[in-house]
Amino acid sequence: MAQINDHYLKLAAGYLFPEIGRRVSQFCEQHPDAPVIRLGIGDVTEPLPPAITEAMHRAVDDLSDRDSFQGYGPEQGYEFLRSAIARTDYQQRGIDISADEIFVSDGSKCDTGNILDVFGPDNVVAITDPVYPVYVDTNVMAGRTGAADDNGRYEGLVYIPVTADNDFTPAVPETRADLIYLCYPNNPTGTVASRETLAAWIEYAQTHESIILYDAAYEAYITDPDVPHSIYELDGARNVAIEFRSFSKNAGFTGVRCAFAVVPRELTGRTRDGVSTPIHSLWNRRQSTKFNGASYVVQRGAEAAYSAAGREQIQNLVAFYLENARLLREGLQAAGVEFYGGINAPYVWLKTPHGATSWNFFDQLLERAHLVGTPGSGFGASGEGYFRLSAFNSRENVEEAVRRFQSAVN
Amino acid sequence: MAQINDHYLKLAAGYLFPEIGRRVSQFCEQHPDAPVIRLGIGDVTEPLPPAITEAMHRAVDDLSDRDSFQGYGPEQGYEFLRSAIARTDYQQRGIDISADEIFVSDGSKCDTGNILDVFGPDNVVAITDPVYPVYVDTNVMAGRTGAADDNGRYEGLVYIPVTADNDFTPAVPETRADLIYLCYPNNPTGTVASRETLAAWIEYAQTHESIILYDAAYEAYITDPDVPHSIYELDGARNVAIEFRSFSKNAGFTGVRCAFAVVPRELTGRTRDGVSTPIHSLWNRRQSTKFNGASYVVQRGAEAAYSAAGREQIQNLVAFYLENARLLREGLQAAGVEFYGGINAPYVWLKTPHGATSWNFFDQLLERAHLVGTPGSGFGASGEGYFRLSAFNSRENVEEAVRRFQSAVN
Repeated sequence: MAQINDHYLKLAAGYLFPEIGRRVSQFCEQHPDAPVIRLGIGDVTEPLPPAITEAMHRAVDDLSDRDSFQGYGPEQGYEFLRSAIARTDYQQRGIDISADEIFVSDGSKCDTGNILDVFGPDNVVAITDPVYPVYVDTNVMAGRTGAADDNGRYEGLVYIPVTADNDFTPAVPETRADLIYLCYPNNPTGTVASRETLAAWIEYAQTHESIILYDAAYEAYITDPDVPHSIYELDGARNVAIEFRSFSKNAGFTGVRCAFAVVPRELTGRTRDGVSTPIHSLWNRRQSTKFNGASYVVQRGAEAAYSAAGREQIQNLVAFYLENARLLREGLQAAGVEFYGGINAPYVWLKTPHGATSWNFFDQLLERAHLVGTPGSGFGASGEGYFRLSAFNSRENVEEAVRRFQSAVN
Repeated sequence: MAQINDHYLKLAAGYLFPEIGRRVSQFCEQHPDAPVIRLGIGDVTEPLPPAITEAMHRAVDDLSDRDSFQGYGPEQGYEFLRSAIARTDYQQRGIDISADEIFVSDGSKCDTGNILDVFGPDNVVAITDPVYPVYVDTNVMAGRTGAADDNGRYEGLVYIPVTADNDFTPAVPETRADLIYLCYPNNPTGTVASRETLAAWIEYAQTHESIILYDAAYEAYITDPDVPHSIYELDGARNVAIEFRSFSKNAGFTGVRCAFAVVPRELTGRTRDGVSTPIHSLWNRRQSTKFNGASYVVQRGAEAAYSAAGREQIQNLVAFYLENARLLREGLQAAGVEFYGGINAPYVWLKTPHGATSWNFFDQLLERAHLVGTPGSGFGASGEGYFRLSAFNSRENVEEAVRRFQSAVN
C-alpha cells in the first residue's frame, strides 16, 4: 500500500500568493472595469536586457547546428557561467569563492528547498519572522516541524521576530539552531543586515556548528556602500554559510529561470556519529542525481549578464525599479504612513494605518484604490499589522498607485 | 550542530557515467590520437528541429518586449503546453488524460527523483534489474534502503531481474511492493513491455494499492503497433500509475530541458492512519513550493514539438536514430553476437562475447576498437555480462563503430 508523506497534511491550506490571487479574481469579477494595479507578488515587469536576449538567440542558433549543438550539460552548470559568476560576483570584489564552489540551477526557490535534501531530519531550523514562506513550508514537508498553532507557527521551528520594535535586526537565539535562514536584502521587509549583524550570526554559527542559508536574491538592489553584498565578505563565513543568488530580480529572469548556490569547500556538517563531512560533495551528489543542469540557452543568457553591455543594462533596470521604490517611499511619507525598506531593496514595508490587520488593509486597498499589495501576516505572525508594496511595475502604474494610495488612506 | 543526511553515505562512490568518463579520459590521455567513438551515455547528437528553434527565437523576442514579456509562469506549466500534450499525446490516441493532470518540468531525471517527496519513508520500493541508476540512488538518499551488499544491491529494495532468461519480462513480485518503477521502452535493455505484462502489473498494483512510476521517456521510439505508448492505454492504470515523459530523446532536448509527469486525479495513497489522499494535490503542492516552472523559452519550444511541422521533423529525427540502431543490430548479428532491443528503442543490449564481465568488455572495446559503450553491470547486478550500445550518434560514426566492433570481437 503506497503511503503518502504525512507531513504534507500539516501545511496550512493555502500558500499566500494563491489566496491573494483568489481575492483579486473575485474582486475583478465583481468590478470588471476596475483598473487594478498589482504591487503584490514580487515579479518583474520590464523586458530582458538586449545583451541577454542577443546571447539567447545565439544559443538557440548553436542548438540548430550539429557542430555547435549541446546535449546534456554539467549538472553543476557550464564552466563559462560558473567562472563568470565566481570572477565577477566574488573575486573582483575581493571575495574568495572559486568557480567549482558555484552550482548553477533553475531558481533560488528550488535551491532553498532542495538544499534540505542533504541535511538530516533532526536539525533545528531557525527563520526570521516575517519570512519568505518557502523556507517554512519546505521544512514542514521534510518533517522538521510539528503541527501549526493558531498563529500559523509550527512547533519545533525557532522564530526570530524582525519588526520595528527591534529595528528589523534579528537577534541570535538563546536556544540551539542548526540551520538558519537569513535573507538580505530582506524579502518581505526590504531592510538590510549590517556587517555587525552578520558577524554576530557567523559567530553564533561557529560556536554552535550551525549552517546559515543566506538568500541574497536581491543583492543587486544594494545602494548603501556599507551593506555587504555577500555573506562571504565577512570573516569566517566560508565555514558556516551557503549563499543563494538569482538572476530573477536583477536580469529579469523570473520566467527564464536561472540561479546559483555557493557551497564553499570548507563547509561541513556532522553525521549522527559526529564525523565531519563536506556539504560540497553531498550537494554535488544531490544535484548530479536529481538535476540535469539548467537549460543551455538560459545559461548563455545568464553569462551575458556579466558582459560589459549586460552589466550596464542590468544596472539601468535595477535603477528603474529603485526609482519606483523611491516614489513609493515618497508617497507614503507624504501620506503620513510609517514604512521601512525600499532603499536597498525593491520592497517597501509599511505599517497599516489605524492599526488595521494586514488582510483588512489588503481588502480596503483593493476596494478603495484598486491596488494589490501583500498582507504582512502572510509572511508570518510577526508580519501582522504590516503590508508589502513591490516596486516591480511600470513608472506610470507606480505613480498612479501612489496617488490612489494617498486618497485611500487620507 | 548541523547534521547531514546520513543516508547519502550509503551511496556507492561513483555514479556509472562519471566512472566511464574517468576511464575514457585516461585512455585518451594515453592515446591522444585514438579516434574514440562514444556510444555510451544516451545523449542525442543531432540539432534541434527547425520548428522548435523558430519557436524558441520567437519566445526570446517575446521576452524582449514589455507587452509580451513573461515573468513567473504557472509552476505546473503553461496552459498552452499542458493542453497540447494532453490533446496530442493522450486524447487523440483515445486516452483519457486532461491538461490539468499534466505537470511540466525541466526533466524526467528531476521528476522521477522529486516525486519521492510526496511519499512516506516506509514504502517498499521495487525496481527492475538492470535499471536506470537514478531510481535506486534517489531512494537510498531518501532513506528507503539499508546498506548495499557486495553486488551493489541495497537492503530493503525489491529487485526484479530482467534478463534473457525471462525474456526481459519483469514478473510481479510475491512480496509487497508499494512503489514500482517500470521504464518502457526500457533503458538500458531497449526491450518493451507487452499489454499483457503491463496488465499484470496494473492488477498487482490494484490488489496491493501500489503505485507504478512509469517512465516512458523513450515512447517516441516505439515502432511496433502492438506496443502501448502510454500505461494509460491499459484499463485501470489511472488509479495506479504516474507516467513520466520527456522531450529529451524525441525532440533532442537533453540540453534544453523539458519533461512532464502525468498524475491522474483518481490516483491516491494512504496516510499512516489509512486515509485515502489524492497524489495530484500533494504533487501540485510540492511543485508549487519547490519549483517555479520550466523556462518560458523552453516551454514554447516544447509546444512547437506538437505543431504539424514539429511532429514531422521529430519523426524524422527519431527515424534517423532508429536507422542507426538497425545498423548496430545488423552489425552485431553479422558478428555473431547475441543481442536484444534496438527495434523500439535507441539502445541495443548485447551479451558480452566469450562470457567477459561487463567492465572487462568495456576495457577491451575501448582498447581494441576505441569504442565507448556502457557496461551492463553498471545498471545493476543482473546486467552483469551485458553491454549497452546507444544509437545516438552520426551515421558515419555508427557505420565506423560497426566495422570496428566486428574486427574487435572476431
